[in-house]
Amino acid sequence: MALQERAVRTRRAVLVAAAAVFAEVGYEAATITEILRRSGVTRGALYFHFGSKAELAQGVLAEQAHALPRVPERALRLQQFLDEALLLAQLLERETGDPIVRGSVRLTVEQGAAQEVLDCRTPMRARVEHTHALLSAAQTNGELLPHVDALGLARLAVGAFTGVQLLSDIMTARADMAERVTDLYRDLLAANAVPSVLSRLDFGPDRGARVYREATGERRTATVPPE
Amino acid sequence: MALQERAVRTRRAVLVAAAAVFAEVGYEAATITEILRRSGVTRGALYFHFGSKAELAQGVLAEQAHALPRVPERALRLQQFLDEALLLAQLLERETGDPIVRGSVRLTVEQGAAQEVLDCRTPMRARVEHTHALLSAAQTNGELLPHVDALGLARLAVGAFTGVQLLSDIMTARADMAERVTDLYRDLLAANAVPSVLSRLDFGPDRGARVYREATGERRTATVPPE
Repeated sequence: MALQERAVRTRRAVLVAAAAVFAEVGYEAATITEILRRSGVTRGALYFHFGSKAELAQGVLAEQAHALPRVPERALRLQQFLDEALLLAQLLERETGDPIVRGSVRLTVEQGAAQEVLDCRTPMRARVEHTHALLSAAQTNGELLPHVDALGLARLAVGAFTGVQLLSDIMTARADMAERVTDLYRDLLAANAVPSVLSRLDFGPDRGARVYREATGERRTATVPPE
Repeated sequence: MALQERAVRTRRAVLVAAAAVFAEVGYEAATITEILRRSGVTRGALYFHFGSKAELAQGVLAEQAHALPRVPERALRLQQFLDEALLLAQLLERETGDPIVRGSVRLTVEQGAAQEVLDCRTPMRARVEHTHALLSAAQTNGELLPHVDALGLARLAVGAFTGVQLLSDIMTARADMAERVTDLYRDLLAANAVPSVLSRLDFGPDRGARVYREATGERRTATVPPE
């Protein structure tokens, strides 16, 4: 294995271990010792890539953009809006989810010491902007009711999703998350989509699992690193 | 001042100071030293009432039930549902809000060490149950559309509110919170209320401030301690 390839793998192993620890115990309680134990790398190798716990957390947040598999393009932009939320719900599952996504979402909503060393506004702003672009396209397509403010709805969707997954985590260890997220999007779309679009959206109970299979299949192909 | 009255005041001063510190820095970063500094009581007096930081946090959570002023009864149960959310948004404001409410809401959504020593599910369950009772009454009154599951909507409202206030805190230090909470309730009610009720609900931009004045006026009368 070439030296550079090994360095890339080591860095990735450290990030995945760090993300898993952040997801489980939060920023403040996370220790370098535990991250080392999980990643199986040496202390020297970890510190070669990351100088501190704050740098590890920043690395996890930066990695999220690459960790999020892409939902295949949908004809209806509002189906895309729904599918992206259902996919994110799948990626946040405790057992089967993606550690980078789970760790970065938790870091983003942490209000403790994490807020002093990390800029949680950047990932939140990125999610609002992405959602706003999607909803603006839906608006251009005539999928939204005339009164809808696309930016306001984007902010509402990101905020409400954050709370719904958090409540599901606290109350049921995320067992009811897919159902709760579907409830949220059903109401948001009932209030904002034109009826002819609303009736064509797929809210089926297995929709999230299907989107997950489609999107992660695509991811495996898309992220093979150039070697 | 009678000995017992002084003890009640001291306990209350410690709880308010602890709640303010928890609201600002979170459970983990909060220190007894800082709580002592803000409350102006002696270490001995604090430890007479609370044996540890965990007990202080439990005290703040328990106090929330008394700290929440009551919205006067409304003819429409869905106006009550909306007004209670608008009032809570006012109580969470950084400068003018209620320290006990701000501290307890933050403790409730903390996922760090707080979750190991506190049972955050109890206050969340209480909020869901209260909202469920309110929505069941709305259902009995014929205010909700026939398909609505009152418990599902209660869970959704509590979860989504939690996220919307959190995002507003992260992004704008809660400057846009009243507007974001109104957006959320407008969509939830558009999707769930019968049209004739929906058109009678007051979503005016100054509604929150008016409800706050009404409810806190009532609170001042209601909570004069029996002496």
